[in-house]
Amino acid sequence: MEQETIIEASGVSGQRGPADHIRRQQILQAADEHFRLYGYRKTTLADIAKSIHLSTPYIYKFFDSKQAIGEAMCWHCLSAALSAIEESVAEAKSPVERLRRVFLGLEGITWRLLSEQKKIYEMVTASFEENWESIGRFRDGVLQIIRKIIVQGRESGEFERKTPLEETARAIAQTTELFYHPTLVAQSGKSRAEEALAVANVAVRSLTS
Amino acid sequence: MEQETIIEASGVSGQRGPADHIRRQQILQAADEHFRLYGYRKTTLADIAKSIHLSTPYIYKFFDSKQAIGEAMCWHCLSAALSAIEESVAEAKSPVERLRRVFLGLEGITWRLLSEQKKIYEMVTASFEENWESIGRFRDGVLQIIRKIIVQGRESGEFERKTPLEETARAIAQTTELFYHPTLVAQSGKSRAEEALAVANVAVRSLTS
Repeated sequence: MEQETIIEASGVSGQRGPADHIRRQQILQAADEHFRLYGYRKTTLADIAKSIHLSTPYIYKFFDSKQAIGEAMCWHCLSAALSAIEESVAEAKSPVERLRRVFLGLEGITWRLLSEQKKIYEMVTASFEENWESIGRFRDGVLQIIRKIIVQGRESGEFERKTPLEETARAIAQTTELFYHPTLVAQSGKSRAEEALAVANVAVRSLTS
Repeated sequence: MEQETIIEASGVSGQRGPADHIRRQQILQAADEHFRLYGYRKTTLADIAKSIHLSTPYIYKFFDSKQAIGEAMCWHCLSAALSAIEESVAEAKSPVERLRRVFLGLEGITWRLLSEQKKIYEMVTASFEENWESIGRFRDGVLQIIRKIIVQGRESGEFERKTPLEETARAIAQTTELFYHPTLVAQSGKSRAEEALAVANVAVRSLTS
């Protein structure tokens, strides 16, 4: 998450005009730096305000809470993951390969985040613990990707059409969570690409039955 | 976990003879009461020792640490869950129904533990966070149950025989974790029998392809 991408991310929630837009960016940027250095939990709104010479009440004009800032940043991180998965899926030739890429992509992205950006990972973990809105949006995004792949596979005749689409898509989407839920990934203590592929293959076989 | 069952559970690790056996039972019983009242994290070995008028060094003759006591109790709880699943599976007529019962059983037992025994649930959560030995044994137990069901289904001709048994069994066992991992279950905030059944059905279809 570099400066320019954070600036883009500031468009996530309501804006109030050009000047406010710039102020929001500045706050998000300061928050990003603090979260990376000290972690989400140890940073307060007052710390963020102070670092850019603003008052805490003034920050409240832009964000209701530290969580609101966290939500914007978390969604930036999660939506980037969804985009990366979508791109990878679009490059695959078959629905089977597309489905495998969803599992492997989610596993890889989450593992890299844990390995390389511990403090941001901590914030994403908090977002799951506290069930932030960004998590619901992310789960919906994964479900949409999987639903689309199943529909394509049914249309091309590669996947079965007997089972209810929605139930199947939801169940498979749920199994991907094994590889992106931050607590599970952290507790596993290792990259699990092989396991992700094996679970993807169960999903594939269920669809090609 | 009533008094008599705790006494049985004391046989989990090494004993030193009749007198020591009784002492172990007494310590486990005291720990059980403390963990239920105050929670695993807030209880110290000294609290347990004091409540039964023993010294902390004396407790160390029987258990290396609070975690060792927790492990014995945790395994008691988890092995009871495995036995309940095994019984339920044994009563089912077909491999398909057996597999569904594993998912539904794990979901139901975990959800009931969360709803009815918060303090014990806290200890089980700690055991996952700290990757206690009892967790590995539990995962192995789930894997064994699933492997056996798949073998039976293959022998009876109801399940396919193309895919490697071990990979398939492990992948399906892994998906059951969605419904018994204490963090996921607590975060879901509701019983998810329907979701467990839907994921079980993905596994079933993958095996009957």
